[in-house]
Amino acid sequence: MPSGKEVSAVLGHIDLHLSSSVERLFALLRIPSVSSHPDRAANCAQAASWLCDTLAAMGLAARVCATAGHPVVVAQHRCGGIGPRVLFYGHYDVQPAEPLELWTYPPFEPRLIDGPHGKRITARGAVDDKGQVLMFLEALRAWKEAGSGIPVEVTVLLEGEEEVGSPNLEPFLRANRDLLSADTVLISDTAMWDIDTPAITTRLRGLAYVQLTLKGPTRDLHSGLFGGSALNPVNALTCILGALHDANGRVQVPAFYDDVRELPPEQVREWDALGFDEQAFLNAIGLSDPAGERDRPPLQRLWARPTADINGIWGGYTGPGAKTIIPAEASAKLSFRLVPDQDPEAIFAGLKRFVAERLPGDARVEYEVFTGAPAIAVPTDTPWVRAARAALMEEYGRSPVMMGCGGSIPIVDAIKRVLGLDSVLMGFGLDGDQVHSPNEKFELRCFHHGIRSHARLLGHLAGVA
Amino acid sequence: MPSGKEVSAVLGHIDLHLSSSVERLFALLRIPSVSSHPDRAANCAQAASWLCDTLAAMGLAARVCATAGHPVVVAQHRCGGIGPRVLFYGHYDVQPAEPLELWTYPPFEPRLIDGPHGKRITARGAVDDKGQVLMFLEALRAWKEAGSGIPVEVTVLLEGEEEVGSPNLEPFLRANRDLLSADTVLISDTAMWDIDTPAITTRLRGLAYVQLTLKGPTRDLHSGLFGGSALNPVNALTCILGALHDANGRVQVPAFYDDVRELPPEQVREWDALGFDEQAFLNAIGLSDPAGERDRPPLQRLWARPTADINGIWGGYTGPGAKTIIPAEASAKLSFRLVPDQDPEAIFAGLKRFVAERLPGDARVEYEVFTGAPAIAVPTDTPWVRAARAALMEEYGRSPVMMGCGGSIPIVDAIKRVLGLDSVLMGFGLDGDQVHSPNEKFELRCFHHGIRSHARLLGHLAGVA
Repeated sequence: MPSGKEVSAVLGHIDLHLSSSVERLFALLRIPSVSSHPDRAANCAQAASWLCDTLAAMGLAARVCATAGHPVVVAQHRCGGIGPRVLFYGHYDVQPAEPLELWTYPPFEPRLIDGPHGKRITARGAVDDKGQVLMFLEALRAWKEAGSGIPVEVTVLLEGEEEVGSPNLEPFLRANRDLLSADTVLISDTAMWDIDTPAITTRLRGLAYVQLTLKGPTRDLHSGLFGGSALNPVNALTCILGALHDANGRVQVPAFYDDVRELPPEQVREWDALGFDEQAFLNAIGLSDPAGERDRPPLQRLWARPTADINGIWGGYTGPGAKTIIPAEASAKLSFRLVPDQDPEAIFAGLKRFVAERLPGDARVEYEVFTGAPAIAVPTDTPWVRAARAALMEEYGRSPVMMGCGGSIPIVDAIKRVLGLDSVLMGFGLDGDQVHSPNEKFELRCFHHGIRSHARLLGHLAGVA
Repeated sequence: MPSGKEVSAVLGHIDLHLSSSVERLFALLRIPSVSSHPDRAANCAQAASWLCDTLAAMGLAARVCATAGHPVVVAQHRCGGIGPRVLFYGHYDVQPAEPLELWTYPPFEPRLIDGPHGKRITARGAVDDKGQVLMFLEALRAWKEAGSGIPVEVTVLLEGEEEVGSPNLEPFLRANRDLLSADTVLISDTAMWDIDTPAITTRLRGLAYVQLTLKGPTRDLHSGLFGGSALNPVNALTCILGALHDANGRVQVPAFYDDVRELPPEQVREWDALGFDEQAFLNAIGLSDPAGERDRPPLQRLWARPTADINGIWGGYTGPGAKTIIPAEASAKLSFRLVPDQDPEAIFAGLKRFVAERLPGDARVEYEVFTGAPAIAVPTDTPWVRAARAALMEEYGRSPVMMGCGGSIPIVDAIKRVLGLDSVLMGFGLDGDQVHSPNEKFELRCFHHGIRSHARLLGHLAGVA
């Protein structure tokens, strides 16, 4: 295990060179690597090359690996087979930036702006996940430049399709089991409890994401000449999707809750003790009435209960003014957040039954499944989680909260299934970071302490036998 | 009243010069005068100028009159104050042509193509309403060129905003009462019963068209981090609009049917006797199950019962692939077809109550009203309708059907209120003309007989004392 003096030198180096770390992050943020837009494929490749070059320049054995989609970057630091082997996973792709007109600054022209917590970095991907990936890379760099070298064996695995459900990562894991073999997995793509309180995320919801298109007449019809006789697919789609929840906020898909278990009482008590202020959480986004299941406390609704949300809907005339048509079809993107033991395939099957039971005789429905990933519960009594707790305790002077997360990182499940490894989820985002929204940002303070926490963690991991 | 010989000469002239009539129609169809697209304003002005020049070249006193929107064309033929004065109304604007990829031929490059009834004219506006306007103009031309001149006093009134609800026509009528004063009004914007059976439309449904936007959070949210706590406006909108109809197809807006009267029994019998084949009507558009009120016969549902149709809906992410957001807002365009005695304002008020009763506490809703026009029932026992029946009987060798129409021509109501005149609705479209849809067409046979019918009608009108 490295000496306290060496760790201090590494941390001091991080402090001194923070502006260089920010500059490197900006270079990555300028690349609009939106994985869902086919015309951004070259930008995804560009982000992968940038990361590969950066890792190679730091002395890691780095390469860009082609997949059926956007490439994967793998980089390795080997130090003679001594000490634990850490697999760090992150993603360089980002969500679409639209609607662009709601950004104060252009999403791919990162800058430091003032906020209540000091400077913040504003750009698409600032926190999700480029900023969090760069923290780990900067921690490696500090050990390299100010310490006696990276103190553990590290494999960095960076993909470019997380925001579209990682369709090609599991095949990559299967094909590269030996290359990726490790003792633990570290991921930085989650949030802190608040800006002063670090957190390790031990629960993640799963995701079942589907697009459905309801088709009726063979063409758009004049709503006067046909209204009262012809099926209107938009009417029909709203009627079906409008029945997704009952008046108490329970999802009405058949068998939806069959596999949902109640939380252990001690977990309920721990979360209750956090004193989560849902009013403040909602007020920050202009709301005040909690949605979701009426009879559940807020952190359960956010972390431990499944949901159904329509992420997009479209059909008929959506331009300016009036057009009097009965549209030929209507579509929606619909996703379910899942909790442990719910099976995405069973949820899709339930949805299909739900729709079929409500489908007018003349309508046809087509489905396209984008993501089906189960939820995750990470064991906390491991040396790896203990190392992360220690690193965060030292950096922040307080115990990290062991929290849940309403979001999904489907790859955590794939890593468990293919490589047999649980992931330590140590992240530095905040609730207000506008992840997936216009004006995404990352607090400079979080970025800075995040680099330091990763550096400390590397030291602690070196001490795990 | 003109002699039979003169009428024959006029009809022969029409037959001989049909190809020139088609060429003139094509010139008008080439102008993409889409009234709802702001960037087509110049094209609307261009169509108005073309019509003004054409009417002036025929010897009418024609001018283009500016309005707050697209201009109105007025042209007059005076013949010394003898005989009835006819006001012909039509519109030169057209619906948007989108989706363009569904057109077999470009919408603004008209051409004659082969169909089961011989040649047909394919273009946006072919039948609605440029083709039907040109029929009347060509009838005037034939009287001018082959007869002793136009046999009655005529005022031609052509507007450019019918497809967006005629917002500026009523002020124009009010400001020009004297200029437009007449004994009867003639409109060609409706359909025949079938290609061999002419029709006069005596009922038109009204239209109440509104756009509503439901707003929730101040920005798009990550559906994982906020799902289960934050209101989803798309979920809420589908829930509200999905409740518009009950299981029997009845509209659930409060007081919606309060002012709807039952048809007189003889009207029910007449319509039943028409033997309308709803299966064929629906099969032509790929459907087979009638929508609308379950307990009503088809022609009542189409002509004499009110409806509620969502004409467009949008919200959230609608691009390729998956984006896991809870959108900040969702919108829909919603319109009601109305029947006589329903008040559009009362319908809007009912809709607002309907939405308010279902609106989640945190949601706000904004409305934009595009059209509010009551339904029309035209008296049939007038000399003007008798003249039209006679003209059609002579041209087609059979009595015209006195029919209803599910569509709306709001201006008919405005003309009644401002000028005190009922309109004779003599149109030559067919159900299959794809009005407002891709591949709009007008049968050449309909265009030809329509010109001849208008020419005959002008002769008959000259005989009305």
